[in-house]
Amino acid sequence: MEDQTPSGREQASPEVRRRVQDSFDRQGLMAHLGARITHIGPGRVHITLPCRPEVTQQHGYFHAGATSAVADSAGGYAGLTLFPEDSDVLTVEYKINLLAPAVGDRIEAVGSVLKSGRTLTVCQLEVYGVHDDGSRKLVANGQQTLIRVNRPAP
Amino acid sequence: MEDQTPSGREQASPEVRRRVQDSFDRQGLMAHLGARITHIGPGRVHITLPCRPEVTQQHGYFHAGATSAVADSAGGYAGLTLFPEDSDVLTVEYKINLLAPAVGDRIEAVGSVLKSGRTLTVCQLEVYGVHDDGSRKLVANGQQTLIRVNRPAP
Amino acid sequence: MEDQTPSGREQASPEVRRRVQDSFDRQGLMAHLGARITHIGPGRVHITLPCRPEVTQQHGYFHAGATSAVADSAGGYAGLTLFPEDSDVLTVEYKINLLAPAVGDRIEAVGSVLKSGRTLTVCQLEVYGVHDDGSRKLVANGQQTLIRVNRPAP
Amino acid sequence: MEDQTPSGREQASPEVRRRVQDSFDRQGLMAHLGARITHIGPGRVHITLPCRPEVTQQHGYFHAGATSAVADSAGGYAGLTLFPEDSDVLTVEYKINLLAPAVGDRIEAVGSVLKSGRTLTVCQLEVYGVHDDGSRKLVANGQQTLIRVNRPAP
Repeated sequence: MEDQTPSGREQASPEVRRRVQDSFDRQGLMAHLGARITHIGPGRVHITLPCRPEVTQQHGYFHAGATSAVADSAGGYAGLTLFPEDSDVLTVEYKINLLAPAVGDRIEAVGSVLKSGRTLTVCQLEVYGVHDDGSRKLVANGQQTLIRVNRPAP
Repeated sequence: MEDQTPSGREQASPEVRRRVQDSFDRQGLMAHLGARITHIGPGRVHITLPCRPEVTQQHGYFHAGATSAVADSAGGYAGLTLFPEDSDVLTVEYKINLLAPAVGDRIEAVGSVLKSGRTLTVCQLEVYGVHDDGSRKLVANGQQTLIRVNRPAP
Repeated sequence: MEDQTPSGREQASPEVRRRVQDSFDRQGLMAHLGARITHIGPGRVHITLPCRPEVTQQHGYFHAGATSAVADSAGGYAGLTLFPEDSDVLTVEYKINLLAPAVGDRIEAVGSVLKSGRTLTVCQLEVYGVHDDGSRKLVANGQQTLIRVNRPAP
Repeated sequence: MEDQTPSGREQASPEVRRRVQDSFDRQGLMAHLGARITHIGPGRVHITLPCRPEVTQQHGYFHAGATSAVADSAGGYAGLTLFPEDSDVLTVEYKINLLAPAVGDRIEAVGSVLKSGRTLTVCQLEVYGVHDDGSRKLVANGQQTLIRVNRPAP
């Protein structure tokens, strides 16, 4: 049913998926934008954001800020999938190139871990403009540094 | 009345301010987040975003995506203030470091032009967490490359 | 004889290869570091730098500056392979993550074009630490923006 | 005698200056390029690189790789000045914009700490083209993330 999740792509364990989804559900911004997670694999997370006026810039394209927000979240959660259970993730920094006007029925951000270290993790960020006819185009590409932090007890 | 606009800071011309404000008002994302422009000077634009659940991440801080979105817009409009009237601005890329948890009653993004060229413009991006008691703290710092494009006739 | 050039990898045309090699040969820094081009394909260039004390940092690893220098050149020349003959390339900016200590008998920088536009080109940069026994490890990963400029007549 | 060191600029303690200078002297690349440290202040280091063919690109300007190398070192040592004695510094990543052709009798890289944390430090990088007549121009601007590591016992 989830057409954005390539069939056959490896899923993370149920525990990891629940941990990522729970954290995502606490991100007010993601809900406010209308974003949702469409894939949680080991070291790889997809987030989809449908097109609507609330996420555009002055020409009606997806705003670079919206594009970046879902890219940043996808990368952060990709890192989190590889962390021990009692830890959390913070973005240290990221850099993103806006390669083409971000148009489409939705954008799909793909965060994937390039290097996972004890303290720092580096992710690749890709954002595709996706049309309902199935065509896809890379509209943004970035690189992100994450830091693992101990999660405070609840 | 605009406490975020330091008194005495130079304003851009009325034409430039109207051009920037008009473009900003067409950015669906900025309205959806609740952001507004608080200063338009030559080569320098401030954007303020009040804190509310719709712009937060999982710990209740401002989401890096929201922080980046206002930083990106502040830089883009800072560049636009120096462009000829018949041109528009696109973000080529930016890099941002999240220096500290973005907390405060609001954040204030300051975009300022570092180098303005015929084709490319480079801006510095700063985001401050601001409390109603007047205290401010730098929470993010970045660098952005913009490209000037000819505006299509309406 | 060129073990760094994977057999079967597509070569650029002789004209393009000569143009890239000529430009490279005029880069005093590359000769001074001891770097040489080991592959020129369409949109993809490899540069190899042997390990010697002159390119190290305080721990005897390759200096980040040397790693970056060959990465930047590899990306720039990857872009140049796709440009018309009367044009030249300048680096607008790049960002690089140093993923692991850069050790090896040599490092190999791989620049590959991600998006080639009329004015701007975006490249991916990878640097591998390579040992004579054939083992390789990704030690740096980056992203670069190039601008095409008209070459002044000689 | 050191014209690059603005008179009156605060110096780091003799211990810190010696520690930085010792580390710098072990960087084979800096000596090979001809770079030297011209100022060591708390959270701020200057490195100067004279112009000569060995550090140029194909047009005779300073190569972006040489510009970046001294910028990276200046930032790294700026961070190190604020670290405890038994620690060392590694570059996590940096991003640099080449703002103008790097010409001059020398370039001067200025690294200054923007945010110093327990684990991570963020620096601003500036590189100036400097002529013997005293004129200076900003030719590159960047931002760098450093990590503090415990120094292995000798």
